[in-house]
Amino acid sequence: MDVGFIGLGAMGQVMARNLCKAGHNVTVYNRTRSRAEALLVDGAVVADTPVEACDNEVIVSLLSDDKAVEAVVFGEGGILAALRPDAIHVCMSTISVALAERLTDAHAQADRAYVSAPVFGRPDAAAAGKLFIVAAGDETSIIRCEPIFAVLGQQTFVVGHKPVSANVIKISGNFLIASVIESLSEAFALVRKYEIDPQAYLDLLTSTLFSAPVYKNYGGLIARQAFEPAGFKLPLGLKDVRLALAAGDATDTPLPIASLVRDHLVVAMAKGYEELDWSVLGRIAAQNAGLE
Amino acid sequence: MDVGFIGLGAMGQVMARNLCKAGHNVTVYNRTRSRAEALLVDGAVVADTPVEACDNEVIVSLLSDDKAVEAVVFGEGGILAALRPDAIHVCMSTISVALAERLTDAHAQADRAYVSAPVFGRPDAAAAGKLFIVAAGDETSIIRCEPIFAVLGQQTFVVGHKPVSANVIKISGNFLIASVIESLSEAFALVRKYEIDPQAYLDLLTSTLFSAPVYKNYGGLIARQAFEPAGFKLPLGLKDVRLALAAGDATDTPLPIASLVRDHLVVAMAKGYEELDWSVLGRIAAQNAGLE
Amino acid sequence: MDVGFIGLGAMGQVMARNLCKAGHNVTVYNRTRSRAEALLVDGAVVADTPVEACDNEVIVSLLSDDKAVEAVVFGEGGILAALRPDAIHVCMSTISVALAERLTDAHAQADRAYVSAPVFGRPDAAAAGKLFIVAAGDETSIIRCEPIFAVLGQQTFVVGHKPVSANVIKISGNFLIASVIESLSEAFALVRKYEIDPQAYLDLLTSTLFSAPVYKNYGGLIARQAFEPAGFKLPLGLKDVRLALAAGDATDTPLPIASLVRDHLVVAMAKGYEELDWSVLGRIAAQNAGLE
Amino acid sequence: MDVGFIGLGAMGQVMARNLCKAGHNVTVYNRTRSRAEALLVDGAVVADTPVEACDNEVIVSLLSDDKAVEAVVFGEGGILAALRPDAIHVCMSTISVALAERLTDAHAQADRAYVSAPVFGRPDAAAAGKLFIVAAGDETSIIRCEPIFAVLGQQTFVVGHKPVSANVIKISGNFLIASVIESLSEAFALVRKYEIDPQAYLDLLTSTLFSAPVYKNYGGLIARQAFEPAGFKLPLGLKDVRLALAAGDATDTPLPIASLVRDHLVVAMAKGYEELDWSVLGRIAAQNAGLE
Repeated sequence: MDVGFIGLGAMGQVMARNLCKAGHNVTVYNRTRSRAEALLVDGAVVADTPVEACDNEVIVSLLSDDKAVEAVVFGEGGILAALRPDAIHVCMSTISVALAERLTDAHAQADRAYVSAPVFGRPDAAAAGKLFIVAAGDETSIIRCEPIFAVLGQQTFVVGHKPVSANVIKISGNFLIASVIESLSEAFALVRKYEIDPQAYLDLLTSTLFSAPVYKNYGGLIARQAFEPAGFKLPLGLKDVRLALAAGDATDTPLPIASLVRDHLVVAMAKGYEELDWSVLGRIAAQNAGLE
Repeated sequence: MDVGFIGLGAMGQVMARNLCKAGHNVTVYNRTRSRAEALLVDGAVVADTPVEACDNEVIVSLLSDDKAVEAVVFGEGGILAALRPDAIHVCMSTISVALAERLTDAHAQADRAYVSAPVFGRPDAAAAGKLFIVAAGDETSIIRCEPIFAVLGQQTFVVGHKPVSANVIKISGNFLIASVIESLSEAFALVRKYEIDPQAYLDLLTSTLFSAPVYKNYGGLIARQAFEPAGFKLPLGLKDVRLALAAGDATDTPLPIASLVRDHLVVAMAKGYEELDWSVLGRIAAQNAGLE
Repeated sequence: MDVGFIGLGAMGQVMARNLCKAGHNVTVYNRTRSRAEALLVDGAVVADTPVEACDNEVIVSLLSDDKAVEAVVFGEGGILAALRPDAIHVCMSTISVALAERLTDAHAQADRAYVSAPVFGRPDAAAAGKLFIVAAGDETSIIRCEPIFAVLGQQTFVVGHKPVSANVIKISGNFLIASVIESLSEAFALVRKYEIDPQAYLDLLTSTLFSAPVYKNYGGLIARQAFEPAGFKLPLGLKDVRLALAAGDATDTPLPIASLVRDHLVVAMAKGYEELDWSVLGRIAAQNAGLE
Repeated sequence: MDVGFIGLGAMGQVMARNLCKAGHNVTVYNRTRSRAEALLVDGAVVADTPVEACDNEVIVSLLSDDKAVEAVVFGEGGILAALRPDAIHVCMSTISVALAERLTDAHAQADRAYVSAPVFGRPDAAAAGKLFIVAAGDETSIIRCEPIFAVLGQQTFVVGHKPVSANVIKISGNFLIASVIESLSEAFALVRKYEIDPQAYLDLLTSTLFSAPVYKNYGGLIARQAFEPAGFKLPLGLKDVRLALAAGDATDTPLPIASLVRDHLVVAMAKGYEELDWSVLGRIAAQNAGLE
């Protein structure tokens, strides 16, 4: 397929490369052009502007936050006005429900197809084509995107025709990850106070009730108090917990654990840990227990 | 081996039966005698008092709370005074760290072997001999207990020579389960407000990052809002979260998620849900979101 | 003085009337014109647009939220472009720190004087000219405003030359009020469970350590569970707590009590109490204790 | 009157002295005898044991916690067995509701009069006879105690015939104070981040809505970050917040602000601040905002 790919961060770059390798014709755009040029060797065409990446059947956007998505989609030089009548805009960014709904409405008014398809997985999973894709939008469009999704992920979950549903699921999933990090942080602080070996404790947890990858990954970081290099930086984690709270605000849904985690992430920001992984919650919990 | 088994609740009864079936000579005691007599058919000998169950190499106690353990162990008619010099008392109850330390000291003063060995698993796992056993105490005693543990569980984790370590791990593990229940409760409330099908949401979670049994089990209860019959009743869950807070108190370790979960479990008590499963936190979250 | 007054809600109308009665020449504007016309009898001139109210030395704006202030100040038909070179814009609205800083910058760029002067007090205090005014901005401008402040309030606190300081103080003050409401709500739930008379309890509190008006006012509402008619509606209270959290977010300052109160206010919204006073937190606490 | 006074801490010593000065015949007992002997000059008689202080019409006990009260009242050498038939035991300690109810029952069974009369006020208020006394018990006994209360306090609030009512009010009052300290701590952290002078901020608060002494006293400590010498040490404050939570536990009443404050006090303990005033919450909030 002819694919435009806008946004080549840690995730986007490896995902675009996979599309090239799978034989798709990929035109890539990134604000910092060098990250786009790195894909020339894979056969990608480099666009100078987002609009230049729009003369394709599928345009994937994968940007860091609401502001970046708004800048790329709307207004002068925005892709919404440049989409072909037969194009599908697939937004894979983790964005707010408010923006997801605005995008849905704007594409509907412009008579363009819009699919929300955020993903679960870190850059290594993206590189291996092992992401989990959560897709929502009109059925026809999603079916047309399947060859793309098949390259990028190990499984695609189609969660209905309202694009925002995919965003809510992505946001709530990240909220659950945040809850795991915070609860592990507290549990590790407790067992350390009783002089129990953190790694042995983690092995026990993950051999029994808590066998999920999220416990292994984050538990390992906390057990070793190894918060850099960051797999997912603190400010991004804080952004995502705020997205969960905003999704709750929009529907009068309290999320008290999200509030608590948000507060602890803010403490971490105040202490200057913005370059560390968001599992630095494990350091905050340790400090609050007098361990550091 | 010759085993005394004191405490035949939902867990104890099936565990004692498994010991009988495995060929051990088991003397059982339960305050409500009928639960002991149910094991006659399995070859158990029924004791009239806890002390009568003490003329054995290993005495397992598995009681519901601190108070029950104190009543059985200490004072007149208590088993501590009745243990043979060669006996090992294996305490499998979920008790406070304070009581675990008191038991450790008391057995040491009486020159009797003491092993802490709480378990993870529900009655069905106990019946299948699939418990996870967390054992701590002096090495020799633990080795002597292995034939018992091998019958009761699928795996034994030996976590050091200080008995209290096993209790801390059990308590912190239950705290982590409580955290999962609360975070799922909030996440389900959120997705329901966005009209996402709870069961589809759960399937997605448990096929991806949250594949652990605890997510499947409790997620299913919350997705279906099916809180009875209770697998683990609200007051027991509240007791366990309080044990975590008490373990934190004893070492100046804050556990803010435990505080939050405790408060929500107290709300559930105030609303009269004491006969329901502790995953009734899912109903509280739904009510707080205006869903019920 | 010649005064323009924009925004005639429950507060603004009585404040503008007081300025008329004190002999100032007041031109008033309100989106719903009838509230402006009610001041004709007091000698006010009614403006058809915000800009019409700008041909004055002092222009007071008192609007309900950020959005309303932005609409009145910026863009086409906005007052910023219409201010006379000698005019001072006195913004008395409770707005976000972000907007306060944007207003400060925009007025500076336009070379117009800007004073932030939010107030503490309910409509009855406003009618009696008994407000507390928190003013910040350049000293000369504040001095020029004094005849206005003297009419509207019983005391003016000048808190520096950075306008945002006044907003931070107003926001943090409302946060403290919210904390009082929540803590009283919990305390009343507790004493009611012990069958202590709420009114006697309140009398004791307010005769001793908690003699401040805020305890008397809100304590009375909670003791009587009398949440309507609303003195300050739930959504406004929630807005203000969110302003506190946003002020914290902007500076990496966690405000855990604000998070907790926010969550309880969201529960109240979810339960449909949006027409009630924000002290309806007292009902939420009572419900959580099983009292209702 | 003939008065026995047991417990001569910072509060008890000045209270016993006031009773001496007012002309009552006071027999004093304290575990550390020197504190009792300091009252010889005021005319007090020094008792060697609690029981020796019991041959009086009124026996006041004012001890630091449940454990101290239990040790003095019950068992061998306990005062309950030594009270004269005409004696009234006035317990002024801040104790748990559980112990208050146990004391009530035990005195009733022993056919002795029991009055619960905890106080609000710090040692300086005690020295000046300006305490607030919260009294509950049978009416006749309270009337008989009035000459004592008149010396010790500026006002006595009689809150019913169930002694525990007085304890609940004392405990909930301390919970409200703790809430004030925490909310001020957070508010001060916020305004400091905006470079607002803490003292000016406090003056503004206490001149307006927050005029109560508790805001002035604790606000001053937090504004100056002056946490030593301690007026009321951290562990005592933590004890009292736990009493509030325990009172809630006993009646299924959640107190989420108490949980939050408890957790922050535990952090302060973990950081080694046990000799500081409990308003050290102001330091925790400052640290969490990156200010220290």
